[in-house]
Amino acid sequence: MTGRFFDSRWVERPGHVEELDGGLPQGFRAAAAAAGIKPSGKPDVALLVCDRAEATSAARFTRSGVLAAPVLLTQERCRLGGLRTVVANSGNANAATGKRGLDAAVKMQGAGAVAGGVAPDQVAVCSTGVIGVPLDADTIVRALPEVHARLSDTGDAEFLQGIQTTDVVEKRASLRVRLGAGMVRLSAQAKGAGMISPHFATLLCFVETDAALDAAACDLLLGATCARSFERISVDGQLSTNDTVILMASGASGVRVEGETEDELRLGEALDALLRQLAVLCVRDGEGARRVGKVIVRGGHHMHVEAAARAVADSPLVKTALNGGDPNWGRIAQAVGMALPGTAPLPLDIAIEGVPVLSGGSPVDHDVVDLAAKVGGTEVAYEVGLPGDGAETEVFFSDLGHDYVTLNAEYTT
Amino acid sequence: MTGRFFDSRWVERPGHVEELDGGLPQGFRAAAAAAGIKPSGKPDVALLVCDRAEATSAARFTRSGVLAAPVLLTQERCRLGGLRTVVANSGNANAATGKRGLDAAVKMQGAGAVAGGVAPDQVAVCSTGVIGVPLDADTIVRALPEVHARLSDTGDAEFLQGIQTTDVVEKRASLRVRLGAGMVRLSAQAKGAGMISPHFATLLCFVETDAALDAAACDLLLGATCARSFERISVDGQLSTNDTVILMASGASGVRVEGETEDELRLGEALDALLRQLAVLCVRDGEGARRVGKVIVRGGHHMHVEAAARAVADSPLVKTALNGGDPNWGRIAQAVGMALPGTAPLPLDIAIEGVPVLSGGSPVDHDVVDLAAKVGGTEVAYEVGLPGDGAETEVFFSDLGHDYVTLNAEYTT
Repeated sequence: MTGRFFDSRWVERPGHVEELDGGLPQGFRAAAAAAGIKPSGKPDVALLVCDRAEATSAARFTRSGVLAAPVLLTQERCRLGGLRTVVANSGNANAATGKRGLDAAVKMQGAGAVAGGVAPDQVAVCSTGVIGVPLDADTIVRALPEVHARLSDTGDAEFLQGIQTTDVVEKRASLRVRLGAGMVRLSAQAKGAGMISPHFATLLCFVETDAALDAAACDLLLGATCARSFERISVDGQLSTNDTVILMASGASGVRVEGETEDELRLGEALDALLRQLAVLCVRDGEGARRVGKVIVRGGHHMHVEAAARAVADSPLVKTALNGGDPNWGRIAQAVGMALPGTAPLPLDIAIEGVPVLSGGSPVDHDVVDLAAKVGGTEVAYEVGLPGDGAETEVFFSDLGHDYVTLNAEYTT
Repeated sequence: MTGRFFDSRWVERPGHVEELDGGLPQGFRAAAAAAGIKPSGKPDVALLVCDRAEATSAARFTRSGVLAAPVLLTQERCRLGGLRTVVANSGNANAATGKRGLDAAVKMQGAGAVAGGVAPDQVAVCSTGVIGVPLDADTIVRALPEVHARLSDTGDAEFLQGIQTTDVVEKRASLRVRLGAGMVRLSAQAKGAGMISPHFATLLCFVETDAALDAAACDLLLGATCARSFERISVDGQLSTNDTVILMASGASGVRVEGETEDELRLGEALDALLRQLAVLCVRDGEGARRVGKVIVRGGHHMHVEAAARAVADSPLVKTALNGGDPNWGRIAQAVGMALPGTAPLPLDIAIEGVPVLSGGSPVDHDVVDLAAKVGGTEVAYEVGLPGDGAETEVFFSDLGHDYVTLNAEYTT
């Protein structure tokens, strides 16, 4: 079956990619269980295991200066090109927990190594949830045998439940990808409302394929596709302490994808579409989000287009206007001006949903009623033109509405 | 009378400063009238005139790359050390209005010159209100004779009404300052909810004194005190297209304040307290604000403390926690980490209302109930310690609550 997952008008399903109902690629098994970390009693410990010794992997992490213990541990003590197990928990981020937090992460890694039958440096540790509360690793260690017993190649949905926090939208896909050398599978499970909060922090994403890739190809593919997906989204402009994205390739399909080949390109296209759709889902799931905006900025300088796009995407004024279905281009102009101090007078171009509203710094007459109707949909596109050519970027962002305030102001620790 | 204006625990009234009920220093007159720019029919054209030819002045402006026409005009075509008239309007920011906007600002300046009896390059032009809508300068020109006829040395309250938009808190003070050489007067009128919005943009502040200052001293005093007041506040982190602060000194008291004297210091202390209290009022008046936060960051690098303080002050997660009266220090840690990428593990210290909650990166046991009670007040202080010594900064910021969303999402252009 196809057509459920790729539902954003900004992400096209490549012709050689087919959606499946679920399940993991060959060589992978996953499961989750409730260990009691989440007060709700929902699954909060998750395990992902690759059975193939020849597996390769790559990882990307948050760049925060306040890294959660599991991120520090995984970054510094793992063979990131040869990961074979992920042990994750939700309900507690194990961040800002000091030395005790590192000890807890080490315990999780050790227990994961036993469960996965691999060396500790092949076990990535991930946590998501409340910041600053000590994590009782023993709870997780005690739960892992049960999780291990439940491991299954159709355990991806259960695994996803074990890593979710405030997620409402299910961020999971299983794909079949037709390459020249044969068919491979590609699947992913992600959590994160594109937001971060001390209660329910973090974007986590785990991607599995049964293609055979060397570690360098894994790293290249993940880096290139993250740069076009998870690095281009913002809910509240807040960088998490825990963000982790991991790609593992089991090689179990027997289909080898060599570097700089047509098949690498095709696998990359599939991965790109997969991660971009997941990224849009993260934004759509931003706490209380009603609409997803996309701002494209073009101009002559890479740093300028990046700064302007981020300023628009993170502006609470732009985000509240998006929430209200208000084609308020003055807020776009203000945000761009803030991002580029000292450049006035800036001959700015702005278009909303393809309708030019500002050209060379002067307002353009347009049908206001028509434009208001256009920004009432679930996806709204903004375009900003700065002087010059050659640089272009985009950022996907959520709106800011009452539900965000309710979720973030009315919870108390 | 004293005690009404200086009401923040973070601003002390200097002993040589006395509050007055109102009124402008000698040599100044002001007034306002309703010209019909504001749909509400409230005053929207304001005039401030200094009658003394020897008057001096200084000005500070927004650094936005999208400068409003009046800011461009005033910055580029005025003798900023010899301003004698301000013509201002509210209800329309004359920003992102292109060439037509500049023409309108020029017209305002010309009419202001006639009204003030001075050269056009002695007339500052200020606008605040909706962005991107052409301003009909003729409306203002037609209203100016009436405003001129109303000019009065007790017109400061009326002048303030003419420049206000969404302001709820009155941001105005008249002070008497005892210097060694004699008594001088100091007054100020400010608008701005510390916020910016395309509907009701901008911080404007006009300060008058009858001390005799040379233009260089004016500039020094204004620069030093703005750096400790209006440059240290944030409501929604959004830089306006129109921010303008102007200090004018008439010299009419006959009390001359020379550079690098005790009297300059005393006048500076008075101006500092005045602008800091006004800045706190702007934050308190932030759209829908319930509480004012102050974050102090100390450490070894000026750029690091600045980045961390801004990140905390602008974080929607910190701001919603402040709104909810939630002592959520995890959000402080996350914001600081975001501001200082690549510095992990950061041995961070955090204290809230004097209660240490994180020390050297590890949580500190504290009385949670007691702390929750402490953050329920109208002013909440956060302290962040980064490694090293010698650098320190502070930012005042508002919370983020439902009223902000209501005001910014539910208005439509």
